[in-house]
Amino acid sequence: MNDVLNLGFARLDLAREARQGLPEVVYGPGKTVDQIVGIVTGLLEHNTGPVLVTRIEADAAEAVLAHVDEGGYDAEARLLLWRPAITGDFAVTVAAAGTSDRPVAAEAVAVASAVGLDTTAVHDVGVAGLDRILQVRGRLRSADAVIVVAGMEGALASVVGGLVRAPVVAVPVSTGYGASLEGVTALLAMHASCAAGVTVVNIDSGFSAAMAVHRIAQIRGAAR
Amino acid sequence: MNDVLNLGFARLDLAREARQGLPEVVYGPGKTVDQIVGIVTGLLEHNTGPVLVTRIEADAAEAVLAHVDEGGYDAEARLLLWRPAITGDFAVTVAAAGTSDRPVAAEAVAVASAVGLDTTAVHDVGVAGLDRILQVRGRLRSADAVIVVAGMEGALASVVGGLVRAPVVAVPVSTGYGASLEGVTALLAMHASCAAGVTVVNIDSGFSAAMAVHRIAQIRGAAR
Amino acid sequence: MNDVLNLGFARLDLAREARQGLPEVVYGPGKTVDQIVGIVTGLLEHNTGPVLVTRIEADAAEAVLAHVDEGGYDAEARLLLWRPAITGDFAVTVAAAGTSDRPVAAEAVAVASAVGLDTTAVHDVGVAGLDRILQVRGRLRSADAVIVVAGMEGALASVVGGLVRAPVVAVPVSTGYGASLEGVTALLAMHASCAAGVTVVNIDSGFSAAMAVHRIAQIRGAAR
Amino acid sequence: MNDVLNLGFARLDLAREARQGLPEVVYGPGKTVDQIVGIVTGLLEHNTGPVLVTRIEADAAEAVLAHVDEGGYDAEARLLLWRPAITGDFAVTVAAAGTSDRPVAAEAVAVASAVGLDTTAVHDVGVAGLDRILQVRGRLRSADAVIVVAGMEGALASVVGGLVRAPVVAVPVSTGYGASLEGVTALLAMHASCAAGVTVVNIDSGFSAAMAVHRIAQIRGAAR
Amino acid sequence: MNDVLNLGFARLDLAREARQGLPEVVYGPGKTVDQIVGIVTGLLEHNTGPVLVTRIEADAAEAVLAHVDEGGYDAEARLLLWRPAITGDFAVTVAAAGTSDRPVAAEAVAVASAVGLDTTAVHDVGVAGLDRILQVRGRLRSADAVIVVAGMEGALASVVGGLVRAPVVAVPVSTGYGASLEGVTALLAMHASCAAGVTVVNIDSGFSAAMAVHRIAQIRGAAR
Amino acid sequence: MNDVLNLGFARLDLAREARQGLPEVVYGPGKTVDQIVGIVTGLLEHNTGPVLVTRIEADAAEAVLAHVDEGGYDAEARLLLWRPAITGDFAVTVAAAGTSDRPVAAEAVAVASAVGLDTTAVHDVGVAGLDRILQVRGRLRSADAVIVVAGMEGALASVVGGLVRAPVVAVPVSTGYGASLEGVTALLAMHASCAAGVTVVNIDSGFSAAMAVHRIAQIRGAAR
Amino acid sequence: MNDVLNLGFARLDLAREARQGLPEVVYGPGKTVDQIVGIVTGLLEHNTGPVLVTRIEADAAEAVLAHVDEGGYDAEARLLLWRPAITGDFAVTVAAAGTSDRPVAAEAVAVASAVGLDTTAVHDVGVAGLDRILQVRGRLRSADAVIVVAGMEGALASVVGGLVRAPVVAVPVSTGYGASLEGVTALLAMHASCAAGVTVVNIDSGFSAAMAVHRIAQIRGAAR
Amino acid sequence: MNDVLNLGFARLDLAREARQGLPEVVYGPGKTVDQIVGIVTGLLEHNTGPVLVTRIEADAAEAVLAHVDEGGYDAEARLLLWRPAITGDFAVTVAAAGTSDRPVAAEAVAVASAVGLDTTAVHDVGVAGLDRILQVRGRLRSADAVIVVAGMEGALASVVGGLVRAPVVAVPVSTGYGASLEGVTALLAMHASCAAGVTVVNIDSGFSAAMAVHRIAQIRGAAR
Repeated sequence: MNDVLNLGFARLDLAREARQGLPEVVYGPGKTVDQIVGIVTGLLEHNTGPVLVTRIEADAAEAVLAHVDEGGYDAEARLLLWRPAITGDFAVTVAAAGTSDRPVAAEAVAVASAVGLDTTAVHDVGVAGLDRILQVRGRLRSADAVIVVAGMEGALASVVGGLVRAPVVAVPVSTGYGASLEGVTALLAMHASCAAGVTVVNIDSGFSAAMAVHRIAQIRGAAR
Repeated sequence: MNDVLNLGFARLDLAREARQGLPEVVYGPGKTVDQIVGIVTGLLEHNTGPVLVTRIEADAAEAVLAHVDEGGYDAEARLLLWRPAITGDFAVTVAAAGTSDRPVAAEAVAVASAVGLDTTAVHDVGVAGLDRILQVRGRLRSADAVIVVAGMEGALASVVGGLVRAPVVAVPVSTGYGASLEGVTALLAMHASCAAGVTVVNIDSGFSAAMAVHRIAQIRGAAR
Repeated sequence: MNDVLNLGFARLDLAREARQGLPEVVYGPGKTVDQIVGIVTGLLEHNTGPVLVTRIEADAAEAVLAHVDEGGYDAEARLLLWRPAITGDFAVTVAAAGTSDRPVAAEAVAVASAVGLDTTAVHDVGVAGLDRILQVRGRLRSADAVIVVAGMEGALASVVGGLVRAPVVAVPVSTGYGASLEGVTALLAMHASCAAGVTVVNIDSGFSAAMAVHRIAQIRGAAR
Repeated sequence: MNDVLNLGFARLDLAREARQGLPEVVYGPGKTVDQIVGIVTGLLEHNTGPVLVTRIEADAAEAVLAHVDEGGYDAEARLLLWRPAITGDFAVTVAAAGTSDRPVAAEAVAVASAVGLDTTAVHDVGVAGLDRILQVRGRLRSADAVIVVAGMEGALASVVGGLVRAPVVAVPVSTGYGASLEGVTALLAMHASCAAGVTVVNIDSGFSAAMAVHRIAQIRGAAR
Repeated sequence: MNDVLNLGFARLDLAREARQGLPEVVYGPGKTVDQIVGIVTGLLEHNTGPVLVTRIEADAAEAVLAHVDEGGYDAEARLLLWRPAITGDFAVTVAAAGTSDRPVAAEAVAVASAVGLDTTAVHDVGVAGLDRILQVRGRLRSADAVIVVAGMEGALASVVGGLVRAPVVAVPVSTGYGASLEGVTALLAMHASCAAGVTVVNIDSGFSAAMAVHRIAQIRGAAR
Repeated sequence: MNDVLNLGFARLDLAREARQGLPEVVYGPGKTVDQIVGIVTGLLEHNTGPVLVTRIEADAAEAVLAHVDEGGYDAEARLLLWRPAITGDFAVTVAAAGTSDRPVAAEAVAVASAVGLDTTAVHDVGVAGLDRILQVRGRLRSADAVIVVAGMEGALASVVGGLVRAPVVAVPVSTGYGASLEGVTALLAMHASCAAGVTVVNIDSGFSAAMAVHRIAQIRGAAR
Repeated sequence: MNDVLNLGFARLDLAREARQGLPEVVYGPGKTVDQIVGIVTGLLEHNTGPVLVTRIEADAAEAVLAHVDEGGYDAEARLLLWRPAITGDFAVTVAAAGTSDRPVAAEAVAVASAVGLDTTAVHDVGVAGLDRILQVRGRLRSADAVIVVAGMEGALASVVGGLVRAPVVAVPVSTGYGASLEGVTALLAMHASCAAGVTVVNIDSGFSAAMAVHRIAQIRGAAR
Repeated sequence: MNDVLNLGFARLDLAREARQGLPEVVYGPGKTVDQIVGIVTGLLEHNTGPVLVTRIEADAAEAVLAHVDEGGYDAEARLLLWRPAITGDFAVTVAAAGTSDRPVAAEAVAVASAVGLDTTAVHDVGVAGLDRILQVRGRLRSADAVIVVAGMEGALASVVGGLVRAPVVAVPVSTGYGASLEGVTALLAMHASCAAGVTVVNIDSGFSAAMAVHRIAQIRGAAR
């Protein structure tokens, strides 16, 4: 079966691009620079879409870029990227509750943009000052999908879920202290949310939220 | 020391009324009718303020009332009550997120009223429909203190905490299912809240919230 | 503001239909028959779309139907329903891992159908017999969205997430015993899933999954 | 709406001072020096009350002070402060169980003082030596509100709650080891407390306790 | 090896009496009346000391007593007992925080008495009214060992641990609700106690506490 | 693909017998009598080995047996069984710590016997009386595999793991109270065991342990 | 009241020596060298018994010793000590399961010795090799009290509890990984132990165990 | 009894080789180089089989090797090894879900090989790309036992458990973030697995899995 490229230390699922519309995304932690170079090279060669490495620190990214041309690095999002997709007409808004949620929001924005979603962000719209969220209500409502990034009690997901009609993907964030339990409280709270139809991804995973919206965006594509 | 009345099965802290402005409140569960009758009789005789029995079911309440005159029973709040205090000018608003939070809100209302607070309730103002909470914003802001009763993700506490200047006491509720973890999620979420100065009491304890406000209300008394 | 109908015991968010494409859905537990009748009557009168009451047992459902005409009851899904939407062309497949996941799957199917999604179910496709899941791979791939219902270790979500391109909403189920921790293990496992872009809703909430897909389905509507 | 100042990386809720009696308080962790300088400058310019930055280390504080004049730094409390309020006549006593609770108590004292509360502290009054707490009983009883700071089993909150009539706000502390579970045990124990009307804030949050008392203190102000 | 009597469904550790000063104690739950009769008969025959069955309900106890003469049943403690030991001069005081802790305290008292300890109880000495505990300080200090029985936050263990010189064995109780987590909070809090040298046994196990003191009491015996 | 028999409500994995040496085992809970009859009938018809239904209560078992001939029911193990395998020469000893572990041990014995393992049990060999376990050391050592069934602290698994050379499969049991946390403590403790190479299955799952040994026993078969 | 010495940063409970037979023990973490010097000096001056500082690292210990004469430091136990008690005739054996439990055992030994107990240790007697524990059975049985120090599954406490008649104090240790949950598993397992009358102290607290035995040892003293 | 070699700091269980077919394996963490040298020397002298030290870092390993000849070090597995067994005919396949599971898989491979198992590994066969696992189905089915190493949701264990007839030992891995809870989610999910007869060892313990298979492999030996 030649849909899998066996590199010894990894098996590339080359068929994923055909199957899911995007090549495998590489999760950086725990991989050596050599392994990442090998995987990225394989994907660039055998697939045609965007190639992404997530959660990679600056020095490792630099080392990889020294071996593989034409890539770019987004330091805040910790994302390495080759062949970004052309931006389409599917509008995603990433709403982040506080300034400490920025890095996770940045990953969501960077990954969503890389796969061709038309992505913008609004920051610091936590529910303790409702005017801030009401002020951007229009922007939220005009989006095709909303990603909510919030730590602490995660209340923003419920509030946004009640304001918009579009799909809402909530990302719990591990900021906060004490009762925040490193994001577990926000994750549970988002699931217990009173707003119907809000879905949740893993703690701190801006990447997963972007990929969830990527799946959703293909709906429209299919409808064209 | 005659500040303690030893009934054998219980020691009544008779000095509590002088020390804290209110006789001991009797927690019903686990006590027999005879024990409750004995305790209530002792408190009515040796203290002068309101006497309350919390979390007592209708049949037990009826049995107690058959032995001790002049008491009243609030079935929704499951509260037995003698000598309610005269309503003062300290205004408390109890805001409940959903209809399933009613029993806990009812306990908060009943206990707060019994100890002389001027108490009203607004129901079903969960954050999934912000208009509902914004609609009652005026009532919330005019209160001297607000008790927020909310299960699920407990987001209402954060939102109300951001809307009002007054003390906010949040009561997590054990309704909900799955990720609600019988109120533990709401308790943790309320603590992780982004609204500064919101305090929290035990799960389902409308009683504790009312008592917390009773402590606060004495501040104004002292200021008179 | 006349977007909210205050019934005293509840505030109906009448504007939700305009805002989110569907009237408020009524969560049955903790509400009396009279309260449900009042809420349903209000929604039927002031809104035009489907009216649903979830998690209502047969006897309560019968009592409600005695007061409100033209409703139907789905006993397996425990769903009361008035004015179901006409089935559109958005195809949802609900995939359930085992026979004990049926009730949750039934709720997902019933709610999704009620709001106009073209819904079918495949049962008993747990990953311990991969042939079963591979056998229905075609059906899964042809769906516009997939809802995965699975208790125990929740592995079906990862496997389906890897097979299809469409949005996948996973519902952890509280069946199982011991290490299943009443669904918490499945919820956590689904979040930790290695399949990118799978989203998760609360334990046992077929309703939430259906509503999440309802949000997604409006994407296509907007694209028409 | 000009009640919100959009700095790009943050939205200042300028109306909070009018709404809640105090400008937004800045939570330091996760913010760069430049961001803090920007936020503080905005608040100093558009609001008139005290401006606080919490949980900021000495070197970052120094860097901020180099850009914004007239501020002060409290190293034990890790608090940056501009325009402290004039001390009023609302007396707060901060009671700390042990010497390892000092840093949290220090934050409570510093924030409470900064917002104009007349604040004093008693240290090392844990319940294992009851004489110590009985010795300061008079000081506790003369306070308008008491903040109890305690790690380990948090028993001090129950004991103080039983001694005084005033509002008691308990702060669980993450000191201790093993069964202390980084403050979670104290948080849960304080909620389970047998002393009626004691409220609780997040683990280690001297800040939240001070803000809760600030809300309470406005009661008296309103009564004047 | 004839130190073990094999009844088929159970193996009696007959040597335990010689080894530990007391025959095996029978844990009632999950055993049939016939099994209990068989075990008790075996112990009465082959050992000479007290024979106890713990946590046995009234009807099962009656059925056992119909087959085995000369036993007694303590309904509050749920204890079946044959051949109680003569009361010695080792004084144990069982201190219970509230009236809902009575059943656990009763088990501690009954088991301790049965094995020959000179046992008395003081009830309702929770720390919210310190006068109550101070009032019995003398009795606590004159005991050779103290068993503290407390649910909720378990603070009584810390306070008593600080008052007396004798061994203190703490029993967390599963009463309370919400944050009490069915006794887990009290168990953790007692371990985190600031009072040195307090030991803890399993939740609700008055039996274990009594047995721990039985071990301790043999110290004095050895010293005679 | 005719390896799967689609009954509508269930998909029978008919190939499992060829693939794994045993037909699918039916998990009883949550299935109707009709469903069980359908599944059992299908398995009896299309497969040739033992057919088992686990965790089925007596009345349901009787109802199933009324429709499907030649089955037997083991009430203690709650196991329905058709076509038990002939007993081979692979010797399994099931060692249970206490009498309350019997039902789980019974399931392990019944399932292991049904699939052809030569199974015996030793009961009540908990580690608090080491003589009991040492007494059966010979029997344990002569077994080809040992299943250890233990609740409470699960120490028996470590001790047996150190005594024998054979595979040891540990089953944590949900008996006990308080700190036993319904078997979770035993599960964790067995994993943390100091005895190398002990493996663990789900809480209360005598079935899983028997199936694990069934896998192991096929090793010898292959070696013949 | 001059039983308390107020140092400003700490209140020394000078009466503790009279009340409990030992001066306050100083818990090192979180205290500065100056604070420790102040406390130790105060205790040496106003009390007459042993003065101990626990959990203090070598450099801090050296700094303290530079200011306070005649002290000694036990590096393995991390204990600073002045005026150790004369060794009496109360024999304590500290049994440690593995070599990684040594530091906790060392603290138990050092503290027990410092307060006058006749203390010895046996190491590496974990239950996976029963011969090791049986080999020292005699030593264990001749002790007046046994401290069991064990991480992982904590099974040694159950086994020792079954072997000896004397008081057994178990110390869970935070060594191990994964399912050991930093000692929480051992703590829970020790509580769930099948050996009657074993008591437990906080994770890693050799100190607490020694103090518990110190309380017990006074029993014999009282009997002289 | 000379089956135990008492080194003072450790007691070597010399009889283990006779009893269990392998000398004690040394767990490296928490032991000094001198202690390891002493233990290894003792085992090499008194036993004849393989001597292993697990989880030892490179520098410590080098220091040990300087004192004890003829050993080897496997850096990825962090394993020190003397006298490896001759490879027999028992085939073990170690299947790892992702590249971040490699170190744990490496330990399983190295230990299994050291004790004479014929061990190979397949990497990166996570279930999100089923083709990868189906591709190696043949290799998995031809193994005498399979070790599955997987973090995240651990779904690979269920899938492999359903594919093969041989014993499957699952190792949960602590990689992943957020909801992975450092391997606890994978551990629980593997226990809740729908695949019958899969057993589980402690988080990250490639060593335990190898030892479990070593026990199993002796079955075949006994059958020869």
